Amino acid sequence: MNEFDLIQHFFLKQKIKRQDVTLGIGDDAALLSLKKGQSLVITTDTMVEGVHFKPHTHPAHLGHKILAVNLSDLAAMGATPAWVTLALTLPEANPAWLEAFGSGFFSLAEQFQVELIGGDLTRGPLSMTVGAYGLVPPGLALRRDTAKPLDKIFVSNTLGDAAFGLTSANPFFLKKLETPIPEITLGESLRNTAHACIDVSDGLIADLSHILAKSGVGATIFTHKIPLSEELKKHTDYEKALTLALSGGDDYVLCFTVPPKNAHKISSKCTEIGFITENPEFRILNEDSSTYSPITAGYQHF
Amino acid sequence: MNEFDLIQHFFLKQKIKRQDVTLGIGDDAALLSLKKGQSLVITTDTMVEGVHFKPHTHPAHLGHKILAVNLSDLAAMGATPAWVTLALTLPEANPAWLEAFGSGFFSLAEQFQVELIGGDLTRGPLSMTVGAYGLVPPGLALRRDTAKPLDKIFVSNTLGDAAFGLTSANPFFLKKLETPIPEITLGESLRNTAHACIDVSDGLIADLSHILAKSGVGATIFTHKIPLSEELKKHTDYEKALTLALSGGDDYVLCFTVPPKNAHKISSKCTEIGFITENPEFRILNEDSSTYSPITAGYQHF
Repeated sequence: MNEFDLIQHFFLKQKIKRQDVTLGIGDDAALLSLKKGQSLVITTDTMVEGVHFKPHTHPAHLGHKILAVNLSDLAAMGATPAWVTLALTLPEANPAWLEAFGSGFFSLAEQFQVELIGGDLTRGPLSMTVGAYGLVPPGLALRRDTAKPLDKIFVSNTLGDAAFGLTSANPFFLKKLETPIPEITLGESLRNTAHACIDVSDGLIADLSHILAKSGVGATIFTHKIPLSEELKKHTDYEKALTLALSGGDDYVLCFTVPPKNAHKISSKCTEIGFITENPEFRILNEDSSTYSPITAGYQHF
Repeated sequence: MNEFDLIQHFFLKQKIKRQDVTLGIGDDAALLSLKKGQSLVITTDTMVEGVHFKPHTHPAHLGHKILAVNLSDLAAMGATPAWVTLALTLPEANPAWLEAFGSGFFSLAEQFQVELIGGDLTRGPLSMTVGAYGLVPPGLALRRDTAKPLDKIFVSNTLGDAAFGLTSANPFFLKKLETPIPEITLGESLRNTAHACIDVSDGLIADLSHILAKSGVGATIFTHKIPLSEELKKHTDYEKALTLALSGGDDYVLCFTVPPKNAHKISSKCTEIGFITENPEFRILNEDSSTYSPITAGYQHF
């Protein structure tokens, strides 16, 4: 089966057909039409075998995750996903692998009405890069540089479960690690409510630090307010769980800041963990007001 | 130097700052504003070491080429390039390599007023994926499925030089192979003039075949009309030169079809090589009307 047959076979099988796609897969480029009053949101993320996932990870999970991590970036902007491109590099043409990859990819794409509009299929060491394109009303995108002193800081779900999944065979943690669900609906709901937002991919400390640096503010967060799953507390001791929650990666929950007057609008599934300060210091306090000392601060590629 | 320092150091150095970029590098995603009456054009292409380029290719040439091949897809749509994303996977953090890569990349980006709006930097086997975003007035994009019988077929430059560069150390051919210039201006000028268009990346036969299949037409082209450079004719025999011109890849010239009434508008730097037929056959004829038999039909990854 050659490159064109492969593309034909697996990537034209998607069910989503959007009205704003004038021309999808199959030309030199895709053609899209935007409605008046829409800002375009663009992000891209890569996953490489042996770096972002273990060899022999189930291809359906890879297809899900490479899309999920990109949609999560759109969620963090408050954007509604519209289209995606997929650049897939494979060591060999394996139809069964591609079929499974496509099932994970398209299943998530259908959930959020996202259409695959183009891509590239090349031979080489296994890796995949998705470009994700979303829409947001002008001026309502959630940014990193808009946190304000006194804002309350929230996270949208428990932290540390995905990082624990790196060394666990427990299905609960593996699911969190391999098939995260991007917080699209939450992101959209925060457009008029939150000040700043980021998705937690490199660990809460590292990612919240980006908001602080870009906004020129500080924060105080409390270790006893960090949401930990019952499963994580059951499978490891509190110190380890807290380290994973603060410094582990791959959570893909949203961390966002909200002015006090809007705090009541935030869904009860989210957890308030602290507040923004004018003082640019980032303080992490324990329940007894002692300072928490993190062991590490986010995954670094180099 | 960590990932953030690297990004800071090399990828924030670009000079292009476009007014339509509300938010560029440094957030979860970029924010762009489109003017009314613009269609969005999106393409993505990957290059992998050992597949698309030899190990130890000069990084400045890689930076140029990964951008050029993506801009060439926009050119083939008649689009004006606006923004790009870069997902770069590197085996190690080598500042000198990145500096050179960036110089090639940004030099070409500046030539076409393209702004880098985001990307991803990861560790792994050397590869790079660019997403390129262009703009075109609605209805004027050049497609593959719009060739009509009697259209004249043109190519925008000599063919086969880049393919000869794969096995030559001659600077003329290496330049054609490693630093092609995308035909942006020509593509824009064809918006109201040409019917169908494609960029020749996999070889003329393979790429013109895409136009024929998508348009449901055939073509007759003539081997003696295929433009060959003086350098190629000097360095190899005619048969080999013709094979490279018809079946070699990496030319990144445009192949387009033009209704006879518009043929006089086509720049004299382009060469007419044949015509579109209602009969869906693809015929390649020699000057004496005998049929040319190609040796191979385009590079296939699998």
